[in-house]
Amino acid sequence: MKIFEEIESEVQSYARSFPRIFNKAQGCYLFDEEGNKYLDFLAGAGTLNYGHNHPVLKKALVEYIMDDGITHGLDLHTKAKGEFLESFKHNILEPRDLEYVMQFTGPTGTNAIEAAMKLARNVTGRENIITFTNGFHGCSLGALAATGNAHHRGVAGTSLGGISRVPFDGYLGDGIETTEYLDKVLSDSSSGIDHPAAVLVETVQGEGGINAASLDWLKNLEAVCRKHDVLLIVDDIQAGCGRTGTFFSFEPAGIKPDIVTLSKSISGYGLPFAIVLFKPELDQWKPGEHNGTFRGNNLAFVTAKHALDTFWKDDSFAKEVRRKGQYIEDRLNTIVAEVGEGNFTVRGRGMMRGINCVSGELASKITKACFKQNLIIETSGADDQVVKFLCPLIISDEELKQGIDIVERAIREVCAKTDEMPEERSYFDENYDIAV
Amino acid sequence: MKIFEEIESEVQSYARSFPRIFNKAQGCYLFDEEGNKYLDFLAGAGTLNYGHNHPVLKKALVEYIMDDGITHGLDLHTKAKGEFLESFKHNILEPRDLEYVMQFTGPTGTNAIEAAMKLARNVTGRENIITFTNGFHGCSLGALAATGNAHHRGVAGTSLGGISRVPFDGYLGDGIETTEYLDKVLSDSSSGIDHPAAVLVETVQGEGGINAASLDWLKNLEAVCRKHDVLLIVDDIQAGCGRTGTFFSFEPAGIKPDIVTLSKSISGYGLPFAIVLFKPELDQWKPGEHNGTFRGNNLAFVTAKHALDTFWKDDSFAKEVRRKGQYIEDRLNTIVAEVGEGNFTVRGRGMMRGINCVSGELASKITKACFKQNLIIETSGADDQVVKFLCPLIISDEELKQGIDIVERAIREVCAKTDEMPEERSYFDENYDIAV
Amino acid sequence: MKIFEEIESEVQSYARSFPRIFNKAQGCYLFDEEGNKYLDFLAGAGTLNYGHNHPVLKKALVEYIMDDGITHGLDLHTKAKGEFLESFKHNILEPRDLEYVMQFTGPTGTNAIEAAMKLARNVTGRENIITFTNGFHGCSLGALAATGNAHHRGVAGTSLGGISRVPFDGYLGDGIETTEYLDKVLSDSSSGIDHPAAVLVETVQGEGGINAASLDWLKNLEAVCRKHDVLLIVDDIQAGCGRTGTFFSFEPAGIKPDIVTLSKSISGYGLPFAIVLFKPELDQWKPGEHNGTFRGNNLAFVTAKHALDTFWKDDSFAKEVRRKGQYIEDRLNTIVAEVGEGNFTVRGRGMMRGINCVSGELASKITKACFKQNLIIETSGADDQVVKFLCPLIISDEELKQGIDIVERAIREVCAKTDEMPEERSYFDENYDIAV
Amino acid sequence: MKIFEEIESEVQSYARSFPRIFNKAQGCYLFDEEGNKYLDFLAGAGTLNYGHNHPVLKKALVEYIMDDGITHGLDLHTKAKGEFLESFKHNILEPRDLEYVMQFTGPTGTNAIEAAMKLARNVTGRENIITFTNGFHGCSLGALAATGNAHHRGVAGTSLGGISRVPFDGYLGDGIETTEYLDKVLSDSSSGIDHPAAVLVETVQGEGGINAASLDWLKNLEAVCRKHDVLLIVDDIQAGCGRTGTFFSFEPAGIKPDIVTLSKSISGYGLPFAIVLFKPELDQWKPGEHNGTFRGNNLAFVTAKHALDTFWKDDSFAKEVRRKGQYIEDRLNTIVAEVGEGNFTVRGRGMMRGINCVSGELASKITKACFKQNLIIETSGADDQVVKFLCPLIISDEELKQGIDIVERAIREVCAKTDEMPEERSYFDENYDIAV
Repeated sequence: MKIFEEIESEVQSYARSFPRIFNKAQGCYLFDEEGNKYLDFLAGAGTLNYGHNHPVLKKALVEYIMDDGITHGLDLHTKAKGEFLESFKHNILEPRDLEYVMQFTGPTGTNAIEAAMKLARNVTGRENIITFTNGFHGCSLGALAATGNAHHRGVAGTSLGGISRVPFDGYLGDGIETTEYLDKVLSDSSSGIDHPAAVLVETVQGEGGINAASLDWLKNLEAVCRKHDVLLIVDDIQAGCGRTGTFFSFEPAGIKPDIVTLSKSISGYGLPFAIVLFKPELDQWKPGEHNGTFRGNNLAFVTAKHALDTFWKDDSFAKEVRRKGQYIEDRLNTIVAEVGEGNFTVRGRGMMRGINCVSGELASKITKACFKQNLIIETSGADDQVVKFLCPLIISDEELKQGIDIVERAIREVCAKTDEMPEERSYFDENYDIAV
Repeated sequence: MKIFEEIESEVQSYARSFPRIFNKAQGCYLFDEEGNKYLDFLAGAGTLNYGHNHPVLKKALVEYIMDDGITHGLDLHTKAKGEFLESFKHNILEPRDLEYVMQFTGPTGTNAIEAAMKLARNVTGRENIITFTNGFHGCSLGALAATGNAHHRGVAGTSLGGISRVPFDGYLGDGIETTEYLDKVLSDSSSGIDHPAAVLVETVQGEGGINAASLDWLKNLEAVCRKHDVLLIVDDIQAGCGRTGTFFSFEPAGIKPDIVTLSKSISGYGLPFAIVLFKPELDQWKPGEHNGTFRGNNLAFVTAKHALDTFWKDDSFAKEVRRKGQYIEDRLNTIVAEVGEGNFTVRGRGMMRGINCVSGELASKITKACFKQNLIIETSGADDQVVKFLCPLIISDEELKQGIDIVERAIREVCAKTDEMPEERSYFDENYDIAV
Repeated sequence: MKIFEEIESEVQSYARSFPRIFNKAQGCYLFDEEGNKYLDFLAGAGTLNYGHNHPVLKKALVEYIMDDGITHGLDLHTKAKGEFLESFKHNILEPRDLEYVMQFTGPTGTNAIEAAMKLARNVTGRENIITFTNGFHGCSLGALAATGNAHHRGVAGTSLGGISRVPFDGYLGDGIETTEYLDKVLSDSSSGIDHPAAVLVETVQGEGGINAASLDWLKNLEAVCRKHDVLLIVDDIQAGCGRTGTFFSFEPAGIKPDIVTLSKSISGYGLPFAIVLFKPELDQWKPGEHNGTFRGNNLAFVTAKHALDTFWKDDSFAKEVRRKGQYIEDRLNTIVAEVGEGNFTVRGRGMMRGINCVSGELASKITKACFKQNLIIETSGADDQVVKFLCPLIISDEELKQGIDIVERAIREVCAKTDEMPEERSYFDENYDIAV
Repeated sequence: MKIFEEIESEVQSYARSFPRIFNKAQGCYLFDEEGNKYLDFLAGAGTLNYGHNHPVLKKALVEYIMDDGITHGLDLHTKAKGEFLESFKHNILEPRDLEYVMQFTGPTGTNAIEAAMKLARNVTGRENIITFTNGFHGCSLGALAATGNAHHRGVAGTSLGGISRVPFDGYLGDGIETTEYLDKVLSDSSSGIDHPAAVLVETVQGEGGINAASLDWLKNLEAVCRKHDVLLIVDDIQAGCGRTGTFFSFEPAGIKPDIVTLSKSISGYGLPFAIVLFKPELDQWKPGEHNGTFRGNNLAFVTAKHALDTFWKDDSFAKEVRRKGQYIEDRLNTIVAEVGEGNFTVRGRGMMRGINCVSGELASKITKACFKQNLIIETSGADDQVVKFLCPLIISDEELKQGIDIVERAIREVCAKTDEMPEERSYFDENYDIAV
């Protein structure tokens, strides 16, 4: 580990929670240099929906490289890009009756958000963008203004402007529909909330603590946007690509955002990649206005195309995600009912779930205890109080059960209710039936 | 091409200049779907210093993928990362007596700039950052504020603050040392230029028109920074990684910046990758303060390590770059002396060169004429008035000669001085001696 | 009127509602060039609490001028300033057990707000300031950022930053205590509401539509500020100087703001004047940091001192204000119960009252009808939907009754319920007993 | 002095240099409570061009007050305002062939600047405003962004944006015409200086150190503005109203600014007052967009009208200012030739002059020594290194001579060249002939 201590900046984060040197990965597992195997319930913070190094994508990637396919071509047209566009159109847009134009931004989520915010501001000629409590959209200055987290905001060193913050679904308590507040401030010319270019929202807030907006709230939010002629941007970077049980997380709400950002799992292989989708009438970009060196990552085009062709040619994969999502929900509900401090709660949607442990300290003890049992799992939320379940979507029922078992044991241990502990089970108990 | 027209945003840029569908690349050449071969004097805008798909790097990359090496691991310690750090330390830092800590930012140049600006602002507690006329640093909001280009700035849609702009070397004319102006405003408490956190500079401005600062100016700039307790940030994203004849572009000036950004060619293979280097005492980051999903691109670690081991274990590669850079300079000087409008000038350093054609229209005609002869070359500068030579550094003498011959012919054609045209030469005339 | 049309900018506002040329004023009356007399229920938008040209102040002012007292002395110590300070200390601070230091800013409310915001930001080292929906604090850029009104904000032409907007008392409906929302976002490190320097609040929002915060809400607001170590700034520019029935509008809430701004009626004679009061430990200004040419208006010192000595040596004047305030409330309640559209409501506190007519068009018709009966009265609120009662505090019972009678008649006329009109009364009916 | 120490904020500035309690003033003199008489070469920092309490204006003012003329009427049309407008049109605009519309802003210079900046930004739809090194325009947030002084900027506590700073005339040394730099950055779309709404300039920088732009530079500046379709705003708050020898300071340059701000001496009596003048086609304000309580100071209308009628009905007063300005220049040139450190220089135009003592410490000793001889005179400049001559324009030759004699003696004393002191002269030596 010497070289890391010696030369890598203190800014490193996950490496602190999981102090190993990893060198291989397959499916739901990471392996360290000493050959230890870790079940991965972090999955690149939602980047590895199809697991590590999926064999189909791997094969396509290696063949492409071996054939001297274009690796770097700026934003030139390439065969790989064309095939990805065709696949996305065929597998994603057409079946969902969505007409979107696609922009390749710099290959990071934050860059996609920067592009989306610029586009909204330019098309409307307005500056203000509505964002929500506990929203997380990235760390470059434009996206950071939209991000709620004080830890990240605190290092900006300059004013973060052009944003108005309003309460997310549930933030004001159960009885209060916060889209009504938004409607009110937008209707009130003296509210101090300038007529916005756009509303920028995550349907399920990942870093903010796995807060899932209700489908009704999303519908209402779209209605408020339409009423006030405001663009609706869904940041689907973490919740998209199937994580919640549909390709886009907003599908079950029946809404059609004006702009959508995707990144993380869109390449399918963990490669840097980000795109912005928007309605054709918003495509008022002039050539090169938002540019960048890596805005066409051809290796990612290759794996992304194969991921779409493999997992999204029909609804079967999404169905599986919903089934497993239901299993996770049931298990977690049982756990919080039985153990914890009595005030633990379950949150999330599909396979994007969390247990709110209220205390960040407690949540941290739980994830540490999990790591001792070779499970990689992280926390999120303002105080890192939420244990976050982001396992690969391709996880087998067995692996899923094992992982949750580990968490359950960890919670029981940490909550010191060892007397209530269930009898020891093999992590690989084949007989457990998770069908729901 | 239908799919691109149908679904890709109008923001595309290079694809307009070179309307082909490319599918393979090797060394200095791109190939389109129809098998046509193009000599690449753009090289990913400086991203492909070692050419396309270099065989040594390709081999290492494929082996790594085949072995299920970690592709995506957030910022976890990986063997690949450790080996890259070791190689960078051994091949780059130690021989140059540089003590830097390394931060992996999001894998884009603009993200590295965002991190560098944040760091400088936080360490000093000051907001203002000095940037230069014609500087280009990226398109996310923080970097965009530092960028001079109106085309890019114009779509921000919000205020771009925290920056003071001062004239780059030569901007006020030959006799005027612009660092004296900087010194004066920093000495004058009523100048309106707030005490800055940092000066952010490119030693050779790429997008700004291949403007090379003199080594004396760089020395003076460092001295002004030291005098006023201001950090010096060199943005070496385009000019670094050997482009100007040394690994870091600032080496011949004998200066030691406080912070350095690298991207583009650092992976060696065109993969998204970016790093920030800074003096250890500046490493005041707290864990995760500047985070992002793709800040450890392990495939890039692999190729970057092999690029360093292959090209930077001694000075021989850099010497070759300087030799070829001299050849380019000589050829371009001859060309502008003989042809053009009499007011063309040569600019740049090493293998980062340009011909300022004064008129953007003229320069565009020249690059279009080059493309007809299968040479890919682009323009830069405020009015795209500079024909920009950014060929791979590994280019052979022959290929280099051929490319420049094409440009020369294009200039002669465009300038309509066909009577002055030299007799036809084969593009592969082996007898031309470029040794200088 | 020719010269006004010819040469005065279109920015003029009140002059449009009351298109006369005025030349004299006394007590509650304005007189135009043709000798017509107007009862003034606007009173300089709260600047003339003691009426026009109060004889005691007038005498003192003329004597001072005749004696060649200092008119302009920058911020030099003058006898007039010293006497004002003594009087303010003796009549205002000491009886209320308030220990404040006083800053003389530029003689406008907006300048006092600018100073207060700077002070709060500097003392705390934080940028963010919490302001409220419908708040109005001025039109210079710092104060404008804090102001809610879109009409004013819309001409900034640059970003208005450093502010977070939260709902004022009652904004989210009756059952919801909005200070709890404030407490929540300040407790939540991921709320996106940066730890603020201060909360800036009007106890009764004047321009925002005569919205009176409840005393409990003000208490809660102070408690939230104390809990989170945030300064509390009360903008008492319109509601202060006795308007609501106590010298400072916050007195009945039992709170002690850290910073208070006063302007409008503080000179007592309508002269430009503004002050900022703050706790001594906050006086971290360095000499001249917030300067300006007119920050000591000596003529205003003279009239202000005499106003304090005349009206604030004991509680009798304030009691009268409360008595008359109660009368206004009773009358307005009766009016809205009997007439209007059934949805009119009464709002405000003390002699700062309004009738919310819901529709701006309706309210405008009412004030126009009043003007035909020689009553000057204006509207406020986001849609100018509130008829605003801001008559001089020294108004006699008769004059007060007359004015309200006029408004009542106007409302009845406008609401076209002429059949319900009460029988004609003389505007000077001496027998009406307003004692409450 | 107790009350001042006890209760007035530490922000006070001039009161520190002249620690007396003043109570009367007439013409060029201030008197303290003990009856001491001080010759006033500060004159309200340029606010008292016609001296203290000028008898003609005083008479008009007292009569107006005695007659119960409107004191406060918001922006209502008043007889006093109409007469001021007529006088301004007749005495100022018509003879100079200037067609301007007039806006009454809040009665402070900084408020006039805020309005001018807003207007320029709105009319052009651009944000950037060009300002100059050492410019001073006020302390509210919009004006503060335009101000160069770090002491004032340092307390903003938030970002000061929307401004680009360029070098004032002479800032880059004698040979360099800084308007050429401005022309270059405005012509260069990659300069990073966004196409500005306006250039904001003082013809003679007062607070910045009495830096007088040459008339050629002003002409060139106007030409650059016209070339690039940029509005020219002259801030004539300190240099206007006759201070430099013409009513507007820009008259001898033959330029016609688009927008002009006036304050300080425009009331003639030291009363708070400020106006913005602009070309009629720029009057795109909507009613009340830039409002404020005190934007019609009727007492100031009265004195301003009489000041214009008294001093500006023909050119005789301005001629006297130029004659006395020449005398000051001659005297100061002689002084710096004879005494000082050899490196003192004279600067300024008309009766707005300064001696640059290079060292702020030295300048401070000189003004302190002057105060011992009952002369009130201040410094300006980044380091307070300039002794600033701003005596009333109505000063008699004798008083002027006396004041300069005192400064000369002070300089000789401070520079410790007492052996070189001229023989003692009575301060009232009638025989000295200052005619030039």
